[in-house]
Amino acid sequence: MSIDVLGYAAHTPTDDLSPYHFARREPCPDDVVIEILYCGVCHSDLHSIRNDWGNAHYPLVPGHEIIGRVLAVGTAVTRFKAGDNVGVGCMVDSCQHCDACEQGLEQYCEKGTYTYNTPDRHNEGFTFGGYSEKIVVSDKFVLKIPEGLDLAGAAPLLCAGITTWSPLRHWKAGKNSKVAVVGLGGLGHMALKLGKALGSHITLFTRSPGKEQDARDLGADRIVLSTDAAQMAAVKGQFDLIIDTVPYVHDINPYIPTLSLNGTLVLVGYLGGLEPFLNTVPLILGRKSVAGSLIGGIAETQEMLDFCGEHNITSDIEVIKMQDINAAYGRMLKSDVKYRFVIDMASLKDDK
Amino acid sequence: MSIDVLGYAAHTPTDDLSPYHFARREPCPDDVVIEILYCGVCHSDLHSIRNDWGNAHYPLVPGHEIIGRVLAVGTAVTRFKAGDNVGVGCMVDSCQHCDACEQGLEQYCEKGTYTYNTPDRHNEGFTFGGYSEKIVVSDKFVLKIPEGLDLAGAAPLLCAGITTWSPLRHWKAGKNSKVAVVGLGGLGHMALKLGKALGSHITLFTRSPGKEQDARDLGADRIVLSTDAAQMAAVKGQFDLIIDTVPYVHDINPYIPTLSLNGTLVLVGYLGGLEPFLNTVPLILGRKSVAGSLIGGIAETQEMLDFCGEHNITSDIEVIKMQDINAAYGRMLKSDVKYRFVIDMASLKDDK
Repeated sequence: MSIDVLGYAAHTPTDDLSPYHFARREPCPDDVVIEILYCGVCHSDLHSIRNDWGNAHYPLVPGHEIIGRVLAVGTAVTRFKAGDNVGVGCMVDSCQHCDACEQGLEQYCEKGTYTYNTPDRHNEGFTFGGYSEKIVVSDKFVLKIPEGLDLAGAAPLLCAGITTWSPLRHWKAGKNSKVAVVGLGGLGHMALKLGKALGSHITLFTRSPGKEQDARDLGADRIVLSTDAAQMAAVKGQFDLIIDTVPYVHDINPYIPTLSLNGTLVLVGYLGGLEPFLNTVPLILGRKSVAGSLIGGIAETQEMLDFCGEHNITSDIEVIKMQDINAAYGRMLKSDVKYRFVIDMASLKDDK
Repeated sequence: MSIDVLGYAAHTPTDDLSPYHFARREPCPDDVVIEILYCGVCHSDLHSIRNDWGNAHYPLVPGHEIIGRVLAVGTAVTRFKAGDNVGVGCMVDSCQHCDACEQGLEQYCEKGTYTYNTPDRHNEGFTFGGYSEKIVVSDKFVLKIPEGLDLAGAAPLLCAGITTWSPLRHWKAGKNSKVAVVGLGGLGHMALKLGKALGSHITLFTRSPGKEQDARDLGADRIVLSTDAAQMAAVKGQFDLIIDTVPYVHDINPYIPTLSLNGTLVLVGYLGGLEPFLNTVPLILGRKSVAGSLIGGIAETQEMLDFCGEHNITSDIEVIKMQDINAAYGRMLKSDVKYRFVIDMASLKDDK
């Protein structure tokens, strides 16, 4: 029997989000039924409901930084039981047998299913995300939340956390690494915390002089004002890895010369054309790379959560009510949040 | 005592090259004095004399694909003796103690000296290249030419060869690799030969339907017409490595989707802004990279030459006289050469 739930949906690209009733599927034997406690607010949520990427399907219920509690499990589920604290991130399904899936890189599966706004192989229509009371997810895509982690603060780990963790790990950031982070928002502040906990020397590139103390508190060893030519020149050739979290079109050319020989700048925040033109000269003269990276695989996400459990790392958040989401989007667009909004789903009861 | 030599120089950006007398330094104890037999003609030579990169110093004697015979060696030289066949590539000096030099990556030394048009630490002025009778080079930058290789055909190995070899090796092209090459010129035809000899499956991207048979003869397993959308779609996600040899501004966006998960497109031919804007979407959705690579280190160049000796690989060339260089540049600009001009330096006697 399907499960009726209340969520918040957009119905057009210009709509505010508003209460929306829909059905979750009748659980399969491998499914976990989750009561959603918290859901982080990701910039992608807003891009999706505004149809910025041209692929929005309405009604659209966003949300892919989900923390919840298991209500029930299917007969084939052994890893979870009712009462467990669990997480669901950006993916709820993948083909399980392509090259990417076999490498544990489900995020690159071409038949993968995102948590919202993706054709749903169980139902007619498209998947609905975490801005809702409950979700039904195959156990393969359910994460364990380590004991002791603040549950609301853990929500953004499911996207902002893994999106920065995956490139840190893939490009082998460790104790001898010099890592720089571009941008201090939801992703950037997680990159600082995770990179620091991995033992790397961490630099924040920012255009805002006022962010210095906050950045240091989050783990940055050095702050470089990217608008200051002298500061930029002083870090020429320094960084093994730059995690660029900026979610809008921006010029990456000034950062390339700050990479070391064989260094890599990894784009994790911006999907689109990089303006202005990319200059190949510093790439060629130092065997440098510009790469992209998308969230992370399921095993890697669990690894990140376990690491956060050991190091007591969560996101710095501001908890809001579901009813405040539209105002929160407005503040997010002005970067007026330190550093992630998280919706307390208990607030949904006020719409009943 | 310095050594008087005849070469060919440009005196302004619009000059034809013409005979020019200058002096090579008095040999130091670690120097090798080389009679130049052949010098390959690289697109960089023309860029340099035309001041396309804004750094030309005149008179400018180009040439960095040098094959010669040792005339004499300094007292400290043990690896070479008079009569040896040797090569000199794009570099004649480096600091020998920076990170790059210590890794055998002298090409990325920030204090390195290119074979021409670079401040000369031995003399006033700038270095003079291989379009000349003789050259004096520190033994650390002199390469051994394996016995049996055609000397004229070996000249382009010193730039075109190593420029494609280095990324093939750095990105680990081997028996299980799928490698694509963009462009079939001096660099591209070497990439086909070297990649094939390394055991990789080789694809050529070309805009010219007529190049198919030539490409197959050079080692290509497959030819993809990059202007044909269906052919491009058919190779989506195929290539671990793309070596992009195109020496002018071009759109790399169509090639990125043909990279496999974790694949890398390496630019080796074009220094400048990549138009149009680079689209980050396929980079992010497959953890793909765009990188640059510059020639190769000295040890790696020797490795490449030894490999070419074992596999009897040389460049496909057209030998010209020094006096024909200006006409040859005109043909090079029209890609009317298969695949490299090599100057027979014996022809310089006609200018005496």
